[in-house]
Amino acid sequence: MSNYSVIGKPIQRIDGYEKVTGAAKFTTDIRLSGMLWGKMLRSPHPHAKILNIDTSKAKKLPGVKAVITSADTLHIKYSNWRRYPHLMDETPLAEDKVRYIGEPVAAVAAIDEDIAEEALGLIEVDYEVLPAVFDPLEAIKDGAPQIHEGPTVKNNISEARHFEFGDVDEAFKKCDRVREDTFYLHPVSHAFLEPTNSVASWDLNGRLTIWTSTQTPYFIQTLLAMVLGIKEGNIRVIKPHVGGGFGGKMELFSDQYCAARLSMLTGKPVKIELDREEVFIATRRRHPMYYTLKTGYMKDGTLVAKEAKVYTDGGAYNAMGPTSLYLSGFFQIFPYTIPNYRYDGFHIYTNKNPSSAMRGFGGPQAEFTCDSQIDMIADDLGMDPAEIRLKNGMKPGHVIPGLAKVGSCGFEECVKKAMESTKWKEKKGKLPMGRGIGMGCYGFMSGGVFNWIDSPYAYSAAYIRMNVDCTVDVYIGSAEIGQGSDTVAAQIAAEVLGVPMEDVKVIRGDTDSCPPDLGAWGSRQTLMTGNAVKMAAEEIKKQLIEVTASLMVPNVVYDFDIKDGRVFIKDRPERGIELAEVVKTAVRAREGQALFGRGIYTPHGKGMVSPAYSFGAQVAEVEVDLETGKVNMIQVTTAHDCGQVINKLGVEGQLEGAFVMGQGYALSENLITDEGKVLNPSLIDYKLMRAPDIPDNFTSLMVETHEPEGPFGAKEAGEGLTNPNAGCIANTIFDAVGVRIKDMPITPEKILKALDEKKKKEGK
Amino acid sequence: MSNYSVIGKPIQRIDGYEKVTGAAKFTTDIRLSGMLWGKMLRSPHPHAKILNIDTSKAKKLPGVKAVITSADTLHIKYSNWRRYPHLMDETPLAEDKVRYIGEPVAAVAAIDEDIAEEALGLIEVDYEVLPAVFDPLEAIKDGAPQIHEGPTVKNNISEARHFEFGDVDEAFKKCDRVREDTFYLHPVSHAFLEPTNSVASWDLNGRLTIWTSTQTPYFIQTLLAMVLGIKEGNIRVIKPHVGGGFGGKMELFSDQYCAARLSMLTGKPVKIELDREEVFIATRRRHPMYYTLKTGYMKDGTLVAKEAKVYTDGGAYNAMGPTSLYLSGFFQIFPYTIPNYRYDGFHIYTNKNPSSAMRGFGGPQAEFTCDSQIDMIADDLGMDPAEIRLKNGMKPGHVIPGLAKVGSCGFEECVKKAMESTKWKEKKGKLPMGRGIGMGCYGFMSGGVFNWIDSPYAYSAAYIRMNVDCTVDVYIGSAEIGQGSDTVAAQIAAEVLGVPMEDVKVIRGDTDSCPPDLGAWGSRQTLMTGNAVKMAAEEIKKQLIEVTASLMVPNVVYDFDIKDGRVFIKDRPERGIELAEVVKTAVRAREGQALFGRGIYTPHGKGMVSPAYSFGAQVAEVEVDLETGKVNMIQVTTAHDCGQVINKLGVEGQLEGAFVMGQGYALSENLITDEGKVLNPSLIDYKLMRAPDIPDNFTSLMVETHEPEGPFGAKEAGEGLTNPNAGCIANTIFDAVGVRIKDMPITPEKILKALDEKKKKEGK
Repeated sequence: MSNYSVIGKPIQRIDGYEKVTGAAKFTTDIRLSGMLWGKMLRSPHPHAKILNIDTSKAKKLPGVKAVITSADTLHIKYSNWRRYPHLMDETPLAEDKVRYIGEPVAAVAAIDEDIAEEALGLIEVDYEVLPAVFDPLEAIKDGAPQIHEGPTVKNNISEARHFEFGDVDEAFKKCDRVREDTFYLHPVSHAFLEPTNSVASWDLNGRLTIWTSTQTPYFIQTLLAMVLGIKEGNIRVIKPHVGGGFGGKMELFSDQYCAARLSMLTGKPVKIELDREEVFIATRRRHPMYYTLKTGYMKDGTLVAKEAKVYTDGGAYNAMGPTSLYLSGFFQIFPYTIPNYRYDGFHIYTNKNPSSAMRGFGGPQAEFTCDSQIDMIADDLGMDPAEIRLKNGMKPGHVIPGLAKVGSCGFEECVKKAMESTKWKEKKGKLPMGRGIGMGCYGFMSGGVFNWIDSPYAYSAAYIRMNVDCTVDVYIGSAEIGQGSDTVAAQIAAEVLGVPMEDVKVIRGDTDSCPPDLGAWGSRQTLMTGNAVKMAAEEIKKQLIEVTASLMVPNVVYDFDIKDGRVFIKDRPERGIELAEVVKTAVRAREGQALFGRGIYTPHGKGMVSPAYSFGAQVAEVEVDLETGKVNMIQVTTAHDCGQVINKLGVEGQLEGAFVMGQGYALSENLITDEGKVLNPSLIDYKLMRAPDIPDNFTSLMVETHEPEGPFGAKEAGEGLTNPNAGCIANTIFDAVGVRIKDMPITPEKILKALDEKKKKEGK
Repeated sequence: MSNYSVIGKPIQRIDGYEKVTGAAKFTTDIRLSGMLWGKMLRSPHPHAKILNIDTSKAKKLPGVKAVITSADTLHIKYSNWRRYPHLMDETPLAEDKVRYIGEPVAAVAAIDEDIAEEALGLIEVDYEVLPAVFDPLEAIKDGAPQIHEGPTVKNNISEARHFEFGDVDEAFKKCDRVREDTFYLHPVSHAFLEPTNSVASWDLNGRLTIWTSTQTPYFIQTLLAMVLGIKEGNIRVIKPHVGGGFGGKMELFSDQYCAARLSMLTGKPVKIELDREEVFIATRRRHPMYYTLKTGYMKDGTLVAKEAKVYTDGGAYNAMGPTSLYLSGFFQIFPYTIPNYRYDGFHIYTNKNPSSAMRGFGGPQAEFTCDSQIDMIADDLGMDPAEIRLKNGMKPGHVIPGLAKVGSCGFEECVKKAMESTKWKEKKGKLPMGRGIGMGCYGFMSGGVFNWIDSPYAYSAAYIRMNVDCTVDVYIGSAEIGQGSDTVAAQIAAEVLGVPMEDVKVIRGDTDSCPPDLGAWGSRQTLMTGNAVKMAAEEIKKQLIEVTASLMVPNVVYDFDIKDGRVFIKDRPERGIELAEVVKTAVRAREGQALFGRGIYTPHGKGMVSPAYSFGAQVAEVEVDLETGKVNMIQVTTAHDCGQVINKLGVEGQLEGAFVMGQGYALSENLITDEGKVLNPSLIDYKLMRAPDIPDNFTSLMVETHEPEGPFGAKEAGEGLTNPNAGCIANTIFDAVGVRIKDMPITPEKILKALDEKKKKEGK
């Protein structure tokens, strides 16, 4: 089975050369002749009524070509929640009031950036400032300022998520012990290196082309059509290379709308590119959460019952919040088996920029709390926390009632491999003061079963054309945003059709030439687009085998296969025909019709969340400087079960990148606000991990299982690995210095303070 | 049958707005960042050996990035004649010798045009000048300079074409009269307004993208692959809007090769744009021909036998000459029935730039001679030449033994309609001296059966995608070069699928996203691409009808149709479902697979030349100034049988444009050479028709027949109409002033001279 030519091999990314040399073109590189520059006027208030907007002075400024406000829109509320209209709460530009500092109120298009900027200063907006609320626990109180009106919103709660199975209350009664902990998860920014930006161009035939940095070209096409009042088919979305998304580019944003609307009004291409400050204050962020976990367990470490209550700071609009909230509750029970579970999550509006999807999609918050608490339970029971994880770990075929059916699951092997590789048993609890080892674990989805966008199309689709020279063109609507998905698609096509990687060209990022695909989020693409690509390639393979069979006329019992440029009889591999000859014959025999295959994939029969789940365990070893509280990462080892590895290099890259992102989340990143105003909106003050901060050593261990639902048995390797890092690091710090931080991020100050308190306590 | 919604209507071109406003982008508008400019060094000699090329000084010039000569090529001979290798006689850059003034010898790429130009001056080429020959009748003599060596070339004859049917010699014996005339057809330039130009960009993955002004993207892809030694699939050809081709952009040219090769060597995009002088001296031209016609006829005007002998001046390379030569012989027997015919044509090398395909493809020469001679015969017999045409005109179902099967044929109706509309009977021979009326007729092909390029693919192909919002994307590899073919394709899709024109988008001109198609030449596209589009649309229509049938479950005997946004029962049109609903249901019912159809077309069983033939008759009325010899066009009437008209506006545009082009051919255009040097290589000295020269009145009469082989019964309307003009004008001049000019073009000088001679003769 695993005698593959390209699958599972360490394959260089197909966009590698371009990106390394700087030849790759991003949206920011798009410059069209006659192009105007757009800028957005943003609210200076966290909550205010808009009494009047006077754009007359701005319009008179020489070089200004158009100024728009909500008066120039169709006043349509939109968001990804097309199937659940009560959740659609955004308008392209603020209508009656503003709800966060940075919310777009107006936009201008001018002949250059400076004039556009100057024009913003000439737009006069009369605001009536309203009382604002910034903390979800304040926002839900009676009498708190109400941010949205509407029958479905009460006390600023826009959506509540509840699920429950087993008999939780009874189960708690039977437990040997129960502990309850409350955690606070802080807001962080996606901090993608390429700012949100787009160029829109309206043509004389009433069609719009938009180049934009997005994870979801199809969503942009669909939603722009809705808010502009034109047909989807008249919008062409082109996604050039994307400099990172991490969940922050999977929705239609005001700037994309404004570029389009301004282009329609001026008849010129319009470019809008957010500056770094705008990216920090006015794009999405990861949800802050107040997370209370009550867990009941037996003395032997068996986890029996769990109750989770989450108050999430959604910011001013829903964005993807309801899904993050749902998934945080869902991933709270991963990768462990809890027979009795109750989740109550509340999505709460506050006067801050909207929280939304971010790598892990609710998972990082869930796993931090879950893994922190497991180690606390282990400490309480005097057990090895790894043993508790093994005892309660999910197994293949696990079913979560009404929610999920787990297929393949290599969790146990991941934990064991990670322990073995790190000499866990020799080190855990035995390292000198200041040095520690800890573990975090995870399970994650391979694409969501969710269809909030209400697409009538299959979740993923692919076309493949095989040319007479055996080159292969793969057309996919999925979105390469740096994660390596185009390379995975090329590998799958190459493997099925028996051609070398260099003969596969991936044509993507253009709604005109590619089939619709729900895009890059929830770690969809390897499994979903991969399945569509495989199906399309197999359609061609079938045609080629038919031609070969008619040329060779073998015993009907034989099967054929294609590999490394040959079509041959599987059990008599020496009997075959060169692929090049078969392809030429096939084209000629089919009246010159080029070989073409189509594939689609939509999950079925796999529950409410995902068709497949990845698993993994991570062990980190740190040194904590007792003088400064600084945490130095010595060694990080991650054992990941992503089913059949498609691209070894790609998975390693994802594992390392995800850890570093999680490390920033755990230790330093924090989108600090005061009265709704972001205080650190720059890459100087917002503390991302940099090269000197990353682990000295990183070990990636592949645990290959075979996922029946995935292409060649593959599943996700993009997001799940973001989830265990914060919990792992917290546990490692506890092992190193004996302090437990529940309030993220775990800054040096907090460590020192906790050490201080611990000393005082012990001193008593 | 003719109750169409868009077919046959006067539809505005889908690229109309863009072109009228200047928004349309041509290759010449393509500017890429880091782009270099390429220039070609051309031979100053009509015939010379290349002893040595020293590029060292040029390479040292600051700003020069690369200089190439034939040493940098793979020394592969190429041309469109891949299936007939003995006819492939060109190399990308001259190898051992040069064969015409302007032949490319070397090329440079530099950071700007001036430096590139300067570098050309620094390339030192040692030539040994050889004796040259410029006239085909000289070139075939023993002892003439031999331009090409090779077993298939003798006395500079690279190809001879012979066909014969009936018993010609016997037939001549039985004729009442026989006349023989020799004509000379002069060289003319395509004079397209957009010069030959391209931008090539080699990428880091070993793939090439070339934007180029071409009629045949697929030929460029195939031939570039061959001469560069890379796979077709690694070459992407993009054809932006094209500013005219007329047959002069249907081959791979040296400048396209050089742009590509220079880009491969420098790693930068390279643009090469010929200046107007280069276009005149070094691109293709229409074949000059010595054309001898011997025709035997009866006293009643019946044409009995014909013999044609043609010596064509091919210039230095074959180019498309062998086909022009073939077709000139073939169209000599159109639109008349000649039971006994013999053709001998010779393609002869001379030291001039290559002759090749040009609108009419041998037809203009054939029809000029044929129509001129018919009027001479009429004069001889004292008959109305229109009566001779009617008597001998082709009828539907006519068969030319071994060569062609004519399907629909509205020739007779065309002649009658043109006569009636112009009051022919009242005017012919009865107008005062200086004023005259005359007729010319034609039949032409709707695409060639030829496959010299040796494509394994169908001749034409189309994909169609129907989106859930009922917009339709039509993907075609055919080439809109101004003739309106994209609009025709959109109309066909709109008609079949019952959607309005504005909902059809045509995606074309890109080998990455479009299926291969042999491109724009020989009036292929309405019939061939049109058939492919129709087939693709009908594949979707079938799917939609299946869904409708399953929703309505009608009596099985009923048929369905789609029209104007509804799917309904043909015989109960009030019973139906909105198309929008059917489309959405179809997508959802098919697991979200978007509606998709594919179509191909390759002619079969229609003889050696074309699947269908258009016909027409043209009548012009002129005034000849007896003092100056200037011919003033008063009125031109063309009755054209293009089968079912697809776009009325488009056909009218083609008829008018073709006449004006033919008028230039007849009266003023002439690519004058002296010892192989073009003397008038500019738009000042090369006399195209301009606005004041065109006819005062133009009447287009549509004669609609139904061509069984064409989409909706359509056939060509692009080239045939170029063929009758020169003969028609010659006949008109004869009617006006009684002089017969057989030596093209019919300049005022020649008319005055002939009048003078006539006077002298009559004075005798």
